[in-house]
Amino acid sequence: MSPNSVPSYDPTTWRLKTFFKAVVDFLDGSDSPRDYLERCLERIVRRESEVMAFAHLNIESARAQADAATKRYRLGHALSSVDGLPIGIKDLIETRDMPTEFGSELFTGHRPIRDAAVVAGLRAGGAVLVGKTVTITFGGGDPAKTRNPHHTSRTPGGSSSGSAAVVGGAMLPAALGTHARGSTIRPASFCGAFALKPTYGAINRQGVFSAAESMDHLGTFAGSLSDMWIIARQMSKSAGGDPGHPGLYGGSRAPKPTKPARLIRLDTAGWTQTDAASKQAFEDLINLLAGNGVEIFNREDDPAIAAYEDELESMPELWMHLYRFEMRWPMLQYRDYDRSKIPPRLLRGLDQGEGLTQEQYRAALVKRAYVRGLHHELASRADGFITLSSPGPAPVGMDQGSAIFNESSSVLGVPAISLPLLAVNGMPLGIQLQGALHGDERLTACARWIAETELLKT
Amino acid sequence: MSPNSVPSYDPTTWRLKTFFKAVVDFLDGSDSPRDYLERCLERIVRRESEVMAFAHLNIESARAQADAATKRYRLGHALSSVDGLPIGIKDLIETRDMPTEFGSELFTGHRPIRDAAVVAGLRAGGAVLVGKTVTITFGGGDPAKTRNPHHTSRTPGGSSSGSAAVVGGAMLPAALGTHARGSTIRPASFCGAFALKPTYGAINRQGVFSAAESMDHLGTFAGSLSDMWIIARQMSKSAGGDPGHPGLYGGSRAPKPTKPARLIRLDTAGWTQTDAASKQAFEDLINLLAGNGVEIFNREDDPAIAAYEDELESMPELWMHLYRFEMRWPMLQYRDYDRSKIPPRLLRGLDQGEGLTQEQYRAALVKRAYVRGLHHELASRADGFITLSSPGPAPVGMDQGSAIFNESSSVLGVPAISLPLLAVNGMPLGIQLQGALHGDERLTACARWIAETELLKT
Repeated sequence: MSPNSVPSYDPTTWRLKTFFKAVVDFLDGSDSPRDYLERCLERIVRRESEVMAFAHLNIESARAQADAATKRYRLGHALSSVDGLPIGIKDLIETRDMPTEFGSELFTGHRPIRDAAVVAGLRAGGAVLVGKTVTITFGGGDPAKTRNPHHTSRTPGGSSSGSAAVVGGAMLPAALGTHARGSTIRPASFCGAFALKPTYGAINRQGVFSAAESMDHLGTFAGSLSDMWIIARQMSKSAGGDPGHPGLYGGSRAPKPTKPARLIRLDTAGWTQTDAASKQAFEDLINLLAGNGVEIFNREDDPAIAAYEDELESMPELWMHLYRFEMRWPMLQYRDYDRSKIPPRLLRGLDQGEGLTQEQYRAALVKRAYVRGLHHELASRADGFITLSSPGPAPVGMDQGSAIFNESSSVLGVPAISLPLLAVNGMPLGIQLQGALHGDERLTACARWIAETELLKT
Repeated sequence: MSPNSVPSYDPTTWRLKTFFKAVVDFLDGSDSPRDYLERCLERIVRRESEVMAFAHLNIESARAQADAATKRYRLGHALSSVDGLPIGIKDLIETRDMPTEFGSELFTGHRPIRDAAVVAGLRAGGAVLVGKTVTITFGGGDPAKTRNPHHTSRTPGGSSSGSAAVVGGAMLPAALGTHARGSTIRPASFCGAFALKPTYGAINRQGVFSAAESMDHLGTFAGSLSDMWIIARQMSKSAGGDPGHPGLYGGSRAPKPTKPARLIRLDTAGWTQTDAASKQAFEDLINLLAGNGVEIFNREDDPAIAAYEDELESMPELWMHLYRFEMRWPMLQYRDYDRSKIPPRLLRGLDQGEGLTQEQYRAALVKRAYVRGLHHELASRADGFITLSSPGPAPVGMDQGSAIFNESSSVLGVPAISLPLLAVNGMPLGIQLQGALHGDERLTACARWIAETELLKT
C-alpha cells in the first residue's frame, strides 16, 4: 500500500491464522511452526521496507528456533501453549541474543548478557523471537521511523510503534510492548491489533526500561484475543508478576467468551477531542451491545459514575505530574552523560521535572489513591467500563497522537484491552474495555464475547 | 590490630568526629572538608591492608570533591547538610565514575554511564564519594575478603561487609549498604556502626542491584545517629523514595532525642541461638531503660505481642521462600550466561528456586500481608520494638553469621535501626529498634535518647 492509497481497514479480515488455532494443525502435521514462521517472513519481506517496524531482525535464529519447535510438536512434547509462536520484542525490553538499544543512540549496539524476565519466560515456553521492534526513544522521545501499516503517511502511535505495526500489519501474530501512558492501547487502536495492558504489576517488568515505574506495564499485542491471553499468561506463569505482586490471575487457555451483564460507558476527558465519525462508530457499537441485551450504564444512572468521570478529567494532569517526577531517574543521568543524544521532547520534560519536590509527588500519590478508591467502589457494580482506545483513528503525520483515553488506566493501574473492531474512514479504531484490578481474565472473557458479537454482525 | 590480638571494642569512643558536628568548624574555618577527608584517608592507609573493605578507591577525585566543598563552605554556600561528607558506596550500587562490579567476576571492570538515584542525590548535595565498598557477590554469594575491623579473624558480616567495616573501623563517617535479609543491620552489629534500614520504599533503589526486590532496602551506615539521619534524608529528598512510594518522612536535621514512653521487647526466633553474655548485655540495657522510666512490654503484658511473636517464628522460612522466588531474575540469567562465575551458595539457592510456582509465591504474599497486619495493629501501642541486632557479636571465621534477628523486618518492610551500644567479650553487638511503617523519624528520635542514655551511663 503506498502512502497515497486510500486506507481500507476491515476488522473482519485477518491475514495470519490465529496462532492458537494453528497449533491444531501442528499436532496433526498439516502445518508446522517453521511453515508458520515462513509465512510471517514473507509478510515481513513484503511490508517492512515501507512500515519500518523492526529495529533488528534475527531471521536465521528464528528459523532454528522454529525448527526446534517443529520437532517438539512432531514428538508430542510441546513446551507450552506458546511453543513455536513467532513474536516481536519492543526494544525497551532486554534480550541476550539481539541488541537492546532503547531506541537511543546512547545505547547503539548495546548487548545485555541477560533476557528480561518475560523474554526468558517466553523462550522457556518455546516462543520464536523474530526481532526487536522499534520504540520511541526511551518510550518518551520524538516520533520513531515506523509507519502505520494501514496507511504509511500516518503514525502507528507510540511508544510501542513497531510492535503495534508488526501485528496490525499481519507480519507477526504477536509482539510485546510497554505502556506507561498509552504506549500499548493507543498504537493498538491506530494499527488494528488486539492488546492487553494488564493490571499493574501482573506481568513482570524486570529487565524492561521504564521511565515511570509506578505507571508502567508490560503490554501484549496480538491478532486475536486467544493469542493475546496465552502469551500474557505464559509470561506471568513463568516469570511471575513484579516482585511483591501476585501476578496475572487466570488459566493458561483464554477464558470462554462471556456476555457482560452490564458495562459502564465512560464518555469523559477525550470525548470532546473525538471526531464525529468515531463517535458514531462508538454509538453504533453501544447500540449493538444494548440490542444484544447488555445493560449500558452511564453517569445519569449512578452518581458514583458521575463522581468517577469528574475525577478522570484530572488524570492527564496527574499522569504528567507523576511522570515528570519519576522520569528523573535515569533520564537526568543520561542527559548529564550526553545531552546531545537526548531527544528535545525528553529534554523539555526533564527541565520541568527537575523542579518538582517530594511533597508535590506525595500529593499526587494521595490523589491517585483517592481516585483508585472511587474506581474500586464502582468496578464491582459492572463487568467493566467501555470507551474508545483513542479519540479517533491514527492521524496523518508522524506525531504519535493523543493519549487522552489512556492516562487514567495507566495512573490507576487497572487492566485495559483494546479491540480493533471499528473502522473509521477506512482506518482501524479500537474499542477499549477497562476492568477491576486483577480482573484481567474476566475482562478478556467479556472482550471475546464483544469481539465475536461485533464481528458476526457483518 | 593483628588477627590474634584481644578485641577491646568500647562503644564510648569514636575516632572520627561526627560529620554533622564538624560542619560547625567548617563554617568558622577551623576545619575543612579537605582536612576531614585527609584524616579519613590516614585511617584508610592505616587499616585498609588488613580490613580490605574497599573494592575501589577514588582518592584523587575525592580530594577534588572535598576541595570544591571546602570552597563552598568558605563562601557560605554549602549545597546541603551532607556537603563535604566523605562516604563509601556499596558495590551493588551504580556509580558513573567508579567501577560497579556487584562483587562478581561477571562484571569485572563494568562502568555504568549513570549513578544510582541515591548516588546522584548525594553528589548533588556535595557528598564526597571516596570509594566502592566490598559486597558479597550479588549480595548473596559466599563470604567476601573483608575482615572485621575490631578483630580481623572475625567476619564483618554481610552482604554490606565493606560499608560496615569502613564505618566500624572509623575509616569513613558513613557508607551506603543494601538490606534484603540482614545485610545492613547484621554487619552494623558486628562492626560497631549505627545503621538505618528504612521503611520499605522510603529511599530510592533505582540503579541498585537487588536479588529480592520486594524485601530489599537502601541502608545507611554512620558513626552517629545524626549523620545517619541527614544522609538518609538527603537521599530521599533529592532522589525520592521508590517510584509510587512517598519516601522518608522527616526533617533535614536529625530529630531531637525523645524518650520512648513504652517499648515492646521481642525475645523471639533468634533468642535460643543467643549466647549468655549477649543475653546479659541485653538485659542490662533493658534494666537501664526501665530504670530511666521506659515501660518495657513483653508477651506477658499483651496477647497481641504473643500472637505477633509466634508469627515471627515463621519469618525466616517465609523470607527464604520469597527470596528463592524473587532471586530467579536476574540470577538464572547470569547462571545461564556463565555458570562458572556464580558462587556455589547462589547456585544452590537457584536450584531450589527454579521449582517454585506462582501459586506458592502468592501464598507467601498472603502470609506476609497477615503478619504485616499484626505488626500494624501492635505498632501503635508503643514507641517501638527492641531486640538485639544479631544473636551475638561477630563469630570467628568468615561465615557472615546468622540473620535470624533480621528476617522479620526485611519481610515486613518495617524500619529498623542498629545501635552499637553493647560490648560483649570486647566485640561490638548492636541493639535493634524496629518501628511502625513510615515511623523512621520517630524511631531515630528514640534511638538517640537511648544512645545518649546508654553512653552517659559509663
